[in-house]
Amino acid sequence: MTHPLDPVFHPRATAIVGVSSKQTSMPSFLHALREQGYHERHALYPVNPKMTEVAGLRCYPSLLSCPDPVDHVISQIPARGVLDLVDECVAKGVRSLHLFTAGFSETGSAEMAEMEKEIVRRLAAGGVRLIGPNCMGLYVPSSGLAFFPDFPRQAGPVMVISQSGANAAEIVYSLADRGLRFSKVVSFGNGPDVDAAELLRYAAEDPETKIVAMYLEGVKDGRAFFDALAACAARKPVVILKGGLSALGARAAASHTGSLAGAADIFEAVCRQTGAWRVDSLSELSDVVVALSTGVSEVAGNRATFMTGGGGMAVLSADVLARFDIDLPEFSPELQGELRQFIPEAGTGVRNPVDAAIGFQVGDQAGRALRLFASGVDVDLVMCNMGLPGPGFQVSVGVGSEDAREGMVHDTLHQMASASADTGVPFVGVRKDHDTDQGAMTVFLGKAMDLGVAVFPSVERAARTVASVLEWRDRRRVIDLPPVV
Amino acid sequence: MTHPLDPVFHPRATAIVGVSSKQTSMPSFLHALREQGYHERHALYPVNPKMTEVAGLRCYPSLLSCPDPVDHVISQIPARGVLDLVDECVAKGVRSLHLFTAGFSETGSAEMAEMEKEIVRRLAAGGVRLIGPNCMGLYVPSSGLAFFPDFPRQAGPVMVISQSGANAAEIVYSLADRGLRFSKVVSFGNGPDVDAAELLRYAAEDPETKIVAMYLEGVKDGRAFFDALAACAARKPVVILKGGLSALGARAAASHTGSLAGAADIFEAVCRQTGAWRVDSLSELSDVVVALSTGVSEVAGNRATFMTGGGGMAVLSADVLARFDIDLPEFSPELQGELRQFIPEAGTGVRNPVDAAIGFQVGDQAGRALRLFASGVDVDLVMCNMGLPGPGFQVSVGVGSEDAREGMVHDTLHQMASASADTGVPFVGVRKDHDTDQGAMTVFLGKAMDLGVAVFPSVERAARTVASVLEWRDRRRVIDLPPVV
Repeated sequence: MTHPLDPVFHPRATAIVGVSSKQTSMPSFLHALREQGYHERHALYPVNPKMTEVAGLRCYPSLLSCPDPVDHVISQIPARGVLDLVDECVAKGVRSLHLFTAGFSETGSAEMAEMEKEIVRRLAAGGVRLIGPNCMGLYVPSSGLAFFPDFPRQAGPVMVISQSGANAAEIVYSLADRGLRFSKVVSFGNGPDVDAAELLRYAAEDPETKIVAMYLEGVKDGRAFFDALAACAARKPVVILKGGLSALGARAAASHTGSLAGAADIFEAVCRQTGAWRVDSLSELSDVVVALSTGVSEVAGNRATFMTGGGGMAVLSADVLARFDIDLPEFSPELQGELRQFIPEAGTGVRNPVDAAIGFQVGDQAGRALRLFASGVDVDLVMCNMGLPGPGFQVSVGVGSEDAREGMVHDTLHQMASASADTGVPFVGVRKDHDTDQGAMTVFLGKAMDLGVAVFPSVERAARTVASVLEWRDRRRVIDLPPVV
Repeated sequence: MTHPLDPVFHPRATAIVGVSSKQTSMPSFLHALREQGYHERHALYPVNPKMTEVAGLRCYPSLLSCPDPVDHVISQIPARGVLDLVDECVAKGVRSLHLFTAGFSETGSAEMAEMEKEIVRRLAAGGVRLIGPNCMGLYVPSSGLAFFPDFPRQAGPVMVISQSGANAAEIVYSLADRGLRFSKVVSFGNGPDVDAAELLRYAAEDPETKIVAMYLEGVKDGRAFFDALAACAARKPVVILKGGLSALGARAAASHTGSLAGAADIFEAVCRQTGAWRVDSLSELSDVVVALSTGVSEVAGNRATFMTGGGGMAVLSADVLARFDIDLPEFSPELQGELRQFIPEAGTGVRNPVDAAIGFQVGDQAGRALRLFASGVDVDLVMCNMGLPGPGFQVSVGVGSEDAREGMVHDTLHQMASASADTGVPFVGVRKDHDTDQGAMTVFLGKAMDLGVAVFPSVERAARTVASVLEWRDRRRVIDLPPVV
């Protein structure tokens, strides 16, 4: 495949115009590209007439003075200088211009909106594609492009299409923390040229993209967007968070990316008709992408075994599951008897929900109990609350050290993955964000993702996601779309 | 005041019967009491016929062989030995027995339910109060009593009344992490003697208790509970999380504490009629107690200024606020002009929501901008998203080091508190749990609580809580209850 956007995602030479010598200038694309190793694989040209060198790289006085060819230009200059830069891009024969530069149609000024149109006209005439204005641009790990220095350098299956740079970054960070990686991430801002529709059409064809996550504020050409969304969603899961669905949010969207946000019910109908998956928040978006990347995506129905430590937690968890219409079939007396071989009598319960965090989480017994949760009763999934109530509790049960606790939780994770493989029933873990320090949590969630076990930070988020998977699949069935995971 | 329960909360000598030599026995009340320094202030008698010493303390073969007097007895022995222990408690003249021991009415066995009744009869005849069975018992920092070793040793204004020990611990940990401290925490399990109603009557009178947080599964005497709740809620805020409101949850509650959970609509009516504050989850309970302990409790209405970094975040936040009926009055052109003196033009917005995380968060300018958010427009509160999108972003804005970032965020917090004091408008902060490591976050949230600034981990939880404060106060007004915060 050679899609017109492919060269934009894979520039062999990039110039950063208006580069600053300070790493602390916001944002430092130079710093980000260097940290990603772009300059080790490709040509990187800082441009600023006031400097001859920056960060160990030769600095050029203008775009035209850079060596040929320059494929991609990142602009950090003020809006008033952009038209000249556009002409230079055309003269230099670049393929794409990324305008981080803001201050165009989103300001509400007629003059600046007209300038934005003129930019698009001149670039189109010269065969140059435009990312932005008013955006963070591209993160393509396979090319070494990124807008923040600490984005993962490895590539993966998730493509992110976002008008907002901060939300794109939030999506990247939150999914990266949960073990996911990215094919392409595009923050496209006002989007008068490269827009949501074109990026969706690209995503549909891109062999590196398996899942599409979008943050959208407004759509200029509704028909083109609908067609592109339908084409992409027919082939791959497309998860969409729409900003500006309220009147307050729409007002904010108008001043953010100059978008007309549109009515909530129309957007909901678009998602229903195309088989796209609408979510209500960034955290829900992250949960859904995790579900799509693990065994939960194939959950067959709403019957679950639930296990947690603490009887009160079991009661509250059952209430939460009921709210999301997840059922907990009762265990037979025989199954309860079998479980009692692994689970001590005092202070635990072997009905469903199972009230037992400990006592069987070591070695073989854990694996046998977990298998019984999946095979001793007719269920579609097993949900395990993997956290322990608190540090004091953990000291009490002999896992006071960080290492001992992490060892125990990782062991349980392996047992869950193995029980899932043996029984064909997906396992879901619940572990609070602050159950351990951030580094240890990232390692744990990375391992969970490698093992195909979805982990959520609360019972509520786990239950909501499972219910949402079931609903989304039903909706696709209704409109005769095939399963895509 | 000398309430009948006061001596129970302040025992001068405690015996732990069935104590184990292992810190890892679950739970180790001995370890917890030692860590809390109980033995430094009072007499502590481990009881186990198989040992003569444990953890540096003399161990006694039986309760009767302990020196006189023994005020409080904690039982870790199996259920079958409890009746004998009960007789010894009466003979020894103890005031209270805490049965951590489980296996009574909650098992569903008629025989064990009868034994529970017999225990209550014998203790009542002997003038001994019963905490439990099937519970974690007492955490009273002013006495040095606790059921987990790492509960805070300082006391504070929150009383927790919980049937579940794990949920009591979760409430303690989650509120302690947010800077709150406790007067008394009681996990009372099946509760055939000391129960929710008596504890509410105590809380109403207790001068050390300003706020009551409850976790409840079932109520045996509905009228007594209603009267006690009404009496307490008339004088102090009472926040209640009810487990078992769904059929699934009720089934779990029956096997956890033998409770009949009752219908959701009846419980809702009880809360409405008494002015108690019903919440749906442990996190909501924690948010509400934070609100009651800070300036948010006095928020006058639903008009807010909202500030966050990132235009897309501003759009999504506005959508969330709209969902909770919080309004964002538009800023006048004059106010926008004034704000432009502190907030740079590029990539920010000075409408409401304000899109600016940086550029004015240092020194004097931050304080001036924050004051304008409260006084330059007619609002009832100011909400500031204090987190930054991610580590890469933070590096880009020059706060890459942990210390620099924490310094900046703490500085903003002080500016918020001072702007709130000057303008009379409550300020609310939003900062994600994993925005920094757990230790630094605890320090930050402790400082926020000291300064009276409520901080929530998400815009959604902040907005939900503010809306909930307004609704709760309206409900109290309708039934002619006075404000209690």
